Amino acid sequence: MKYAVGVDFGTESGRAVLVDVSTGREVATAVSTYSNGVIDERLPESGVPLEPDWALQDPDDYLRVLKTTIPQVLQDAGVVADDVIGVGIDFTACTMLPVTADGRPLCTLPEWRRVPHAWVKLWKHHAAQPEADRINQVAREAGQAWLDRYGGRISSEWFFSKALQILNEAPEVYAAADRLMEAADWVVWQLTGVETRNSCTAGYKALWSKREGFPPKEYFASLHPQFADVIDDKMTRDIRPVGQKAGGLTQQAASWTGLRPGTAVAIANVDAHVAVPAATVTEAGRMVMIMGTSICHMALGTEEHIVPGMCGCVEDGIIPGFFGYEAGQSCVGDHFAWFVENCLPAALEREAQARGLEVHALLEEKAARLEPGESGLLALDWWNGNRSVLVDVDLTGLLLGATLATKPEEIYRALIEATAYGTRVIVETFQQNGVPIHELVACGGLPEKNHLLMQIFADVTGCPIQVSASAQTPALGSAMFGAVAAGAAAGGYDTIFAAAQRMARLKDEGFVPNQVHHEVYNLLYAEYEQLHDYFGRGQNDVMKRLKRLRAEASNRVEAAHA
Amino acid sequence: MKYAVGVDFGTESGRAVLVDVSTGREVATAVSTYSNGVIDERLPESGVPLEPDWALQDPDDYLRVLKTTIPQVLQDAGVVADDVIGVGIDFTACTMLPVTADGRPLCTLPEWRRVPHAWVKLWKHHAAQPEADRINQVAREAGQAWLDRYGGRISSEWFFSKALQILNEAPEVYAAADRLMEAADWVVWQLTGVETRNSCTAGYKALWSKREGFPPKEYFASLHPQFADVIDDKMTRDIRPVGQKAGGLTQQAASWTGLRPGTAVAIANVDAHVAVPAATVTEAGRMVMIMGTSICHMALGTEEHIVPGMCGCVEDGIIPGFFGYEAGQSCVGDHFAWFVENCLPAALEREAQARGLEVHALLEEKAARLEPGESGLLALDWWNGNRSVLVDVDLTGLLLGATLATKPEEIYRALIEATAYGTRVIVETFQQNGVPIHELVACGGLPEKNHLLMQIFADVTGCPIQVSASAQTPALGSAMFGAVAAGAAAGGYDTIFAAAQRMARLKDEGFVPNQVHHEVYNLLYAEYEQLHDYFGRGQNDVMKRLKRLRAEASNRVEAAHA
Repeated sequence: MKYAVGVDFGTESGRAVLVDVSTGREVATAVSTYSNGVIDERLPESGVPLEPDWALQDPDDYLRVLKTTIPQVLQDAGVVADDVIGVGIDFTACTMLPVTADGRPLCTLPEWRRVPHAWVKLWKHHAAQPEADRINQVAREAGQAWLDRYGGRISSEWFFSKALQILNEAPEVYAAADRLMEAADWVVWQLTGVETRNSCTAGYKALWSKREGFPPKEYFASLHPQFADVIDDKMTRDIRPVGQKAGGLTQQAASWTGLRPGTAVAIANVDAHVAVPAATVTEAGRMVMIMGTSICHMALGTEEHIVPGMCGCVEDGIIPGFFGYEAGQSCVGDHFAWFVENCLPAALEREAQARGLEVHALLEEKAARLEPGESGLLALDWWNGNRSVLVDVDLTGLLLGATLATKPEEIYRALIEATAYGTRVIVETFQQNGVPIHELVACGGLPEKNHLLMQIFADVTGCPIQVSASAQTPALGSAMFGAVAAGAAAGGYDTIFAAAQRMARLKDEGFVPNQVHHEVYNLLYAEYEQLHDYFGRGQNDVMKRLKRLRAEASNRVEAAHA
Repeated sequence: MKYAVGVDFGTESGRAVLVDVSTGREVATAVSTYSNGVIDERLPESGVPLEPDWALQDPDDYLRVLKTTIPQVLQDAGVVADDVIGVGIDFTACTMLPVTADGRPLCTLPEWRRVPHAWVKLWKHHAAQPEADRINQVAREAGQAWLDRYGGRISSEWFFSKALQILNEAPEVYAAADRLMEAADWVVWQLTGVETRNSCTAGYKALWSKREGFPPKEYFASLHPQFADVIDDKMTRDIRPVGQKAGGLTQQAASWTGLRPGTAVAIANVDAHVAVPAATVTEAGRMVMIMGTSICHMALGTEEHIVPGMCGCVEDGIIPGFFGYEAGQSCVGDHFAWFVENCLPAALEREAQARGLEVHALLEEKAARLEPGESGLLALDWWNGNRSVLVDVDLTGLLLGATLATKPEEIYRALIEATAYGTRVIVETFQQNGVPIHELVACGGLPEKNHLLMQIFADVTGCPIQVSASAQTPALGSAMFGAVAAGAAAGGYDTIFAAAQRMARLKDEGFVPNQVHHEVYNLLYAEYEQLHDYFGRGQNDVMKRLKRLRAEASNRVEAAHA
């Protein structure tokens, strides 16, 4: 029997899973929490303080994941290294770091250890908003066509926002960095000794496209004179499609992991995107939703289309040979967590305790007793802005229809329904722009936890929903790409399509739309759409004006304290 | 020293106050809770069940108030009957009952005791909505001009809605009733032996006006053939202005109360309206707000104006010689109670307990630390529909601007601000329609309890707010009218103006608008107005459509259970 290892590098920890290549069975799992976690207040050791909105990581934490979890899964499963044919990894993105020409992270060098910009910038480092604003503004003014591929606006989380922040704020770090790299690619480099760049992060986070490459030098020059050659100086134009082999394990990496030297290592990937084939999706028409604090929506297409408000469209970005489309909702699980933390009355908390239930389970139970429309409530799910399709972080949440008889579980259900309407907007926008979608496939934490939510998503969208059988879809997907890197001759597979057919599975039970409910939700969705457009498309910019007043009030408070 | 007694008949109890006529000092107070309270499930004794939305009372409870509280205040104060020169009463309205020609309530007669329609219909009896709808529709179709005096729509709570419901549902009760009366007038009849009808309830609740009288017979006939002569058969056209004397105490009433036979009794009044002179207001320009679960706004004018969305404009309705204007907000204290019951997180409840605070006090403390605009939130205060100026029970609440950082105290403050914006709409509507308002005078429970709320009302409206010194303004006002009924010769006053100068007082400390805050609130109010008009004036009737969907969902649920 042959095995592959998938390693999923998350925000707080890394997780390895050992998978039976012939069936996809997950034989063993091990998790390693990052010692330094998310660094958002002070640098480790030196205690150098960070400014607001910073979020860094320690690259040594990534190596510790390799050194602890892979030996652990081998030991737990009683599997010998000779039977492990491939390794794949996936990562949060854009999570990037400056390194030397031989791959040493600047922050591991004594002379840079106390410099914040020398460390890994985690995906949720949000301090590069001025750079993102400038990147967007200059691109719009220069009529850069690539902007349309990203829904008309790029994020402060993305690669060039972060890179430009380094150049702006710490030019000495920028100068000292021989490379600026995605952490994903850096880890593959550490495993194989070969420097590669994957098409997924390059496409979704660094404005690369297979046909057009990167934006032109003149564009980068107009952001900052020293930024003109960022591609050739700090990166590479050699972008490798996901699904390829990056190289074999080095002696050193073999000694870290307990695997055989030369074991095949796949080109790196992004956590959300690698989940797509692990959720059985390797063709057009079925949209994958990674459902957690937020939702990442991914679909495959055979043609390139500009879909308004999507996060990106990348050829070979998810599955080789396809255009991979990504969209997103900023606030889903976070929404319900906010509600429980800020709005859950003590009486319900006591009831949950008395009955030994989680409060979410109690709310789900009560909310499930309501008919669609029965609460009379309608919400706009913009508590954290709107990613797709409005791409506007300054939009805020709305709840309408409350009466003196409104109950907490009705508000809770209205928030769930709002997120489902938000997904329907995305589905319909794809459909209306040439990207067919007829089925949804869910993975992530929420589908396990909240069946009411899943049923409401089916009822609202009118699409059947299937659920990935794996509770750790990204790690499984990485193992699948590891098996593809090994190839059929070594006991793996020659393509991700072949791997998906054998290794990816869905749960037997899915969610089928209730047609009576779907018809009521069609009426409610029409109301949602009208409010969505009224508040989201400029008819009444009250949300933005309130945000401005809020900022001014905060300034008055600060001035009064100063 | 001379005294007057004021008796305030509320929803759950009646309250007598003994007042020093020369100073307005409240010497003693006694409260009697109604034995049968609000009868909304089953009739007393017989247990006959009531339908939803019914709310009845027992007239014997009113007599028990007279028999217990008046002797009690005399005894507590050590005042002898000879020193009590007058009695005034005020009542909830429209609270009405069918009686015989000699004043016996039908429900006290054995043959009618088990018939719900024979009992007192309390103001909040809401089962006459079909009748109210018909009254409005027919009046609109017939172009009845009086409709404008009531903001274009009359309420199911009002006199003819209730009377027509009796005729529709219990024609035998309607036929057996020699009189249909306001409970206020019935109690005065029991005290004096003289049947009178007061201008306040007739004007505000029974469509009467001093200049035009009641609507014409043809109009009533078009509601129901047997309703044509409702005025002459069941009521009277002899309406007496408030401020007059109804009569003197009968021997029997003297024996109930311990007062002297012949003691002057004032024409009856309504609780909200009688509070106006008790709050020192006997002139134009100062608006009284009775602030409790809802707000009743009252102002005096020297001319008659049609103010859109007011509850009524009645000549002699509040103070003789003035047009009394009334407007209202349906949901104020109720709003905050709803929030605490349904949205207060357990953590705040625990914090309040640990600090020995009421939760409202804790919320007020936290909300008071916020600057105007700092929450980024804006609400429409329509949790219980909108009375003035939109007169639309089908409007519902809205909260806009929420983010994942939104805190409970921010929502609480936004709800307070929304009620203040609602009052500003009323103030500005009066001002724009010829009824000047330059100062607000508050009474009721809320001004005592929530200083933040009062300051926000001042900051939002830009009007200074004074607060009545009395915690029981209606009872004080009734005592003042009692002193006027007695007259100056007996040691009282000849006019309510003279009485108010001596007997009514304000607290020394009021609330002055903070100009910086007022300017921020001007910006926020502009946003409120835009949403108010968008959702309230037909641009987007989503609230009504959601209410319809809610009713349909409830019907589906009921059908499924049937």
